[in-house]
Amino acid sequence: MTGQNSSSSVSTKSISQILAGWDPEGEGAALHDLVTRLYPICRSITGNGTRRSLQMLREWVPLTVREVPTGTTVFDWTVPKEWNIRDAHIKNSRGERVVDFQKCSLHVVNYSVPVRARMRRSELKEHVFTLPDRPDWIPYRTSYYKETWGFCLTQREWDALPDDEYEVCIDSSLEAGYLSYGEFRCQGATDDEMLISAHSCHPSLCNDNLSGMAVAARLAGHLAGASLRYSYRFLWLPGTIGSITWLALNEAILPRIKHGLVLSCVGDPGRFTYKRSRRGHAEIDRAVEHVLQSAGGDFGVAEFSPFGYDERQYCSPGINLPVGCLMRTPNGKYPQYHTSADDLDFVTAPALAESVRRLLSVVEVLEQDYRYVNLNPKCEPQLGRRGLYRLMGGTSNTGLEKAMLWVLNFSDGEHSLLDIAERSQVAFSKLAETAEVLVRNNLLRRI
Amino acid sequence: MTGQNSSSSVSTKSISQILAGWDPEGEGAALHDLVTRLYPICRSITGNGTRRSLQMLREWVPLTVREVPTGTTVFDWTVPKEWNIRDAHIKNSRGERVVDFQKCSLHVVNYSVPVRARMRRSELKEHVFTLPDRPDWIPYRTSYYKETWGFCLTQREWDALPDDEYEVCIDSSLEAGYLSYGEFRCQGATDDEMLISAHSCHPSLCNDNLSGMAVAARLAGHLAGASLRYSYRFLWLPGTIGSITWLALNEAILPRIKHGLVLSCVGDPGRFTYKRSRRGHAEIDRAVEHVLQSAGGDFGVAEFSPFGYDERQYCSPGINLPVGCLMRTPNGKYPQYHTSADDLDFVTAPALAESVRRLLSVVEVLEQDYRYVNLNPKCEPQLGRRGLYRLMGGTSNTGLEKAMLWVLNFSDGEHSLLDIAERSQVAFSKLAETAEVLVRNNLLRRI
Amino acid sequence: MTGQNSSSSVSTKSISQILAGWDPEGEGAALHDLVTRLYPICRSITGNGTRRSLQMLREWVPLTVREVPTGTTVFDWTVPKEWNIRDAHIKNSRGERVVDFQKCSLHVVNYSVPVRARMRRSELKEHVFTLPDRPDWIPYRTSYYKETWGFCLTQREWDALPDDEYEVCIDSSLEAGYLSYGEFRCQGATDDEMLISAHSCHPSLCNDNLSGMAVAARLAGHLAGASLRYSYRFLWLPGTIGSITWLALNEAILPRIKHGLVLSCVGDPGRFTYKRSRRGHAEIDRAVEHVLQSAGGDFGVAEFSPFGYDERQYCSPGINLPVGCLMRTPNGKYPQYHTSADDLDFVTAPALAESVRRLLSVVEVLEQDYRYVNLNPKCEPQLGRRGLYRLMGGTSNTGLEKAMLWVLNFSDGEHSLLDIAERSQVAFSKLAETAEVLVRNNLLRRI
Repeated sequence: MTGQNSSSSVSTKSISQILAGWDPEGEGAALHDLVTRLYPICRSITGNGTRRSLQMLREWVPLTVREVPTGTTVFDWTVPKEWNIRDAHIKNSRGERVVDFQKCSLHVVNYSVPVRARMRRSELKEHVFTLPDRPDWIPYRTSYYKETWGFCLTQREWDALPDDEYEVCIDSSLEAGYLSYGEFRCQGATDDEMLISAHSCHPSLCNDNLSGMAVAARLAGHLAGASLRYSYRFLWLPGTIGSITWLALNEAILPRIKHGLVLSCVGDPGRFTYKRSRRGHAEIDRAVEHVLQSAGGDFGVAEFSPFGYDERQYCSPGINLPVGCLMRTPNGKYPQYHTSADDLDFVTAPALAESVRRLLSVVEVLEQDYRYVNLNPKCEPQLGRRGLYRLMGGTSNTGLEKAMLWVLNFSDGEHSLLDIAERSQVAFSKLAETAEVLVRNNLLRRI
Repeated sequence: MTGQNSSSSVSTKSISQILAGWDPEGEGAALHDLVTRLYPICRSITGNGTRRSLQMLREWVPLTVREVPTGTTVFDWTVPKEWNIRDAHIKNSRGERVVDFQKCSLHVVNYSVPVRARMRRSELKEHVFTLPDRPDWIPYRTSYYKETWGFCLTQREWDALPDDEYEVCIDSSLEAGYLSYGEFRCQGATDDEMLISAHSCHPSLCNDNLSGMAVAARLAGHLAGASLRYSYRFLWLPGTIGSITWLALNEAILPRIKHGLVLSCVGDPGRFTYKRSRRGHAEIDRAVEHVLQSAGGDFGVAEFSPFGYDERQYCSPGINLPVGCLMRTPNGKYPQYHTSADDLDFVTAPALAESVRRLLSVVEVLEQDYRYVNLNPKCEPQLGRRGLYRLMGGTSNTGLEKAMLWVLNFSDGEHSLLDIAERSQVAFSKLAETAEVLVRNNLLRRI
Repeated sequence: MTGQNSSSSVSTKSISQILAGWDPEGEGAALHDLVTRLYPICRSITGNGTRRSLQMLREWVPLTVREVPTGTTVFDWTVPKEWNIRDAHIKNSRGERVVDFQKCSLHVVNYSVPVRARMRRSELKEHVFTLPDRPDWIPYRTSYYKETWGFCLTQREWDALPDDEYEVCIDSSLEAGYLSYGEFRCQGATDDEMLISAHSCHPSLCNDNLSGMAVAARLAGHLAGASLRYSYRFLWLPGTIGSITWLALNEAILPRIKHGLVLSCVGDPGRFTYKRSRRGHAEIDRAVEHVLQSAGGDFGVAEFSPFGYDERQYCSPGINLPVGCLMRTPNGKYPQYHTSADDLDFVTAPALAESVRRLLSVVEVLEQDYRYVNLNPKCEPQLGRRGLYRLMGGTSNTGLEKAMLWVLNFSDGEHSLLDIAERSQVAFSKLAETAEVLVRNNLLRRI
């Protein structure tokens, strides 16, 4: 009922403890190393490249790889054929490989049908994609829903090819098979779920989205060993068709999903950008924005729009889950986007680690965002005699006193801790800690 | 039931087609020419000047001139006597006309009672109005509700008059008669109406409000040949008493009025200013603001206030229709306001034409502002196999794809196209066109 | 039922009349004189200093001094022992008084237990408080809820004391007695009340809060002779424990309190700052903000927070009265705060007088904030024939005409005069005056 790989291990750490013991260097190094090893693999919306990548993530999280057969109807769509590629190249008349898929998986238009032919440069041109404005970068192109083939080259490579007869070879197959995706669920105290989704269909592109794949896996690894209120479901799936497939096959689960995030482009060193869910003011939206706000520094917030990543599907009108999208520099807003320059240098270890840390902070908010009632609601309780308030007067309130007074005043059954955090501008974690102190002193009760 | 001059001609053009074939030079020339011919006529709240002006508008629109007898009770008011004027002048002792109504209708205080007398300059002074700060301009003054007489002169003209005995003559009459106004209604597919109202009582003042009279007539001419959802009612009437009269005599019609605009000062080359209806967020308010926003460039929006033009009456608390006011430079915000400098040079052909065009765009929005439901609401439909989406991936969405995704995502039965336009910042006309494409592809249904 | 000292004297003046005859110099002089005479007294949360101060306020207002016995349970608190102090000093080995309570009441930590001892400077140091950053100022310290003793000195005084044996003496007593507070209520036409509260427990500190005590007393004196709609209740009480005590003993009265203000720091020449009630948009909040706005000049508005003065108690979640806090420079925002520099020079006569005047304006708004209905709601009434509107047209509306049109248009039973003031930006007093004119002309009826 809750996924075969549900983890019900006895948990030992709270999120706050994980954050307290945070090791940015270690986390960053591990993340960048995983991205480095994933980088050369040619992923696509189906095929062995994706399967191998998912296996690699199992180093950190015991995810299940699920296989959905070609031809399966998923809402308005059909699961496509499975694509696999072994090799591809262009050889000149001297038999030299002038373009070689082994060097970079972007050289082949993703999902190209097999081809083996000889042709003049002028004929080959019809199948070649370059970026004239960025002559040293290879573009990323796909053709999932039209059976064709092509090569992607840097403009300089293309310009350097003389008029000649070329041998083109794409040793691929497009056949009935499966769409593969990874799923991991860890069981919390309740069946209410948070969904984390990362698209895993892009070949050698680091920020979009090896960063999201790795960050999600790292977060999953941390949560698997934590004491949790919510259950957490992680999905690594091909963009668009993957989320559509998952949604179509799991409609019964949807009512349990209380919060969700799509992770994408979370490895570059730019500021964070949060794209709100279609609902716009859901708890996940407020939690992420509070975390970004509390951290200080610059960040961006964008309203929902029906473009981007799998939030398009999670937030389609008939699904309408409270799922936002956490990014650093958003898709299309950095020049390296969808080119070979989105490489291992573009994503950094500190940025990857900090993305995991922010997500843990978001989880910390959601886990602890309860409403409380003040058990002494008429006037302030006398905190001093309980040892909770400075006894010498005449100065300003301390931070802890302020947090106590905020929690006491607004714990009227209408305001959650996140409401109070937004109103008071006091960090959520401080309020949560304060609430625990007040509960222990019989001044507050959780509802 | 819906006015004697209802047009039910077989319509052939949509608003979009009218806009597609728009000829700004031809429209501007025709409008300025009509203003030029209306300019010399001495209009007032009653009388033959107004009747002649309304006849002139019939060149473009088969309006009906309605006559309401003096003494008719209209809410708290009474239809006043009819004023007519044949001539007026001031002659000096040598018999020379030093002030001549034939040269400018503003020279006489509008609604002056007849007078024929000889008096010294000092006595005449009591009946003379000038603008000391603008010594070359004649002021515009009225005295509708106090029986008196007067002359308006430039300060220089008055200063040049020596002490002398002057003969003053106002050959006017103030007698039982009628209040005249023009009305035109074109029948659309429904009896729900949009009201367009322009005050027509000002003498030789171009922006205020020959511009509004001419623009309304031009718009009416265009709509009379169009295929329409709403019925459109146009009123050309004297300010204040005219709208009060119409409202008092047509209370039964009011529930049908779904949208309305007062047109005033729409001929000067200043930016557009929209004054919202008393309701503040009515569909007409949102439609006008979207049109101004989409057009780019600067514009102003003002909240409703109970001063200005006939929106005062349409938006009185017991009437409270959703009627805003479209202007360019608002009344009182240009120095020429209510002076002889509000002349044929102050209003321009391009400004007049553009005012008509913006109004057609507003009508286009209102006509097409429906709600739709996405017939495939769970995840996106596969647009590619319907030929509606680029098949090669890896680049950004095109404008049309964006419009489709916006319309599909928010067509949940709660959002109209105008709601989607406001949210997406996509031009309404593009969304409307997109909705039609999606309806044809069975992806959307109008509700 | 409504307090023993309810005033039911026949009232003769309206608030508008009081404001019309306003004498800023006379008011300011009287206020500053009272503050000067209150200044030397050593007040605390209980004791004779407070009693003497309340008696002094009776020069202006016949308030009742209420006495609540030590040990009385008030919600979560207990009324503390009564503290009285006769003398205190530190003498050096030559018997010279190097610190003398008679010179400044701040020299003793407020609520110090009695002590009489000899000790070296090093031992004395444990009981001495200074402000190293402000070496010429004496800090203000209290110890209400921990039985201890101490002295407050300027840093220079302390530094000047050589190593020596000192005799310390605090001739105080801490015994069962009473908590004293002042209360005055003047009866208006209804039992609905406005509450004005000022904390009266601070010793020789002028802005915080002799200013609030004096301003409240002056306001009470003015209202006692006025014709009023609301009843007004004034409280002068020790901070925190005083308002808790009053609330605990007067719960039955709370439903009648429709508006309230805490007065604090209203004597310095800084701009006004209004701290909103917990409700945030209560009528008192809107009234104060309108008065500050209408007066022109700079002012500040702060959202409610659970720190500050007795609004903490009035706005606790189980009480939640619409009580805001009017200040000039807020507590903690001026360097003199809680030091000996908050003295007779820091508060000024004009500032004190203007604070009273603004409060009278707030009362004027609340007293006259009714809803009206336009008796001629369909179109404008013909104001001209009633002599209420200029008869010569062609110019702009006058201020009075504008006020009339605003009141008529929005008197639809849904908008109060304060609503109209906020929307129109017309001063409330002008709208109220206009409403009276319209009522007299049978155009408006109060509801």
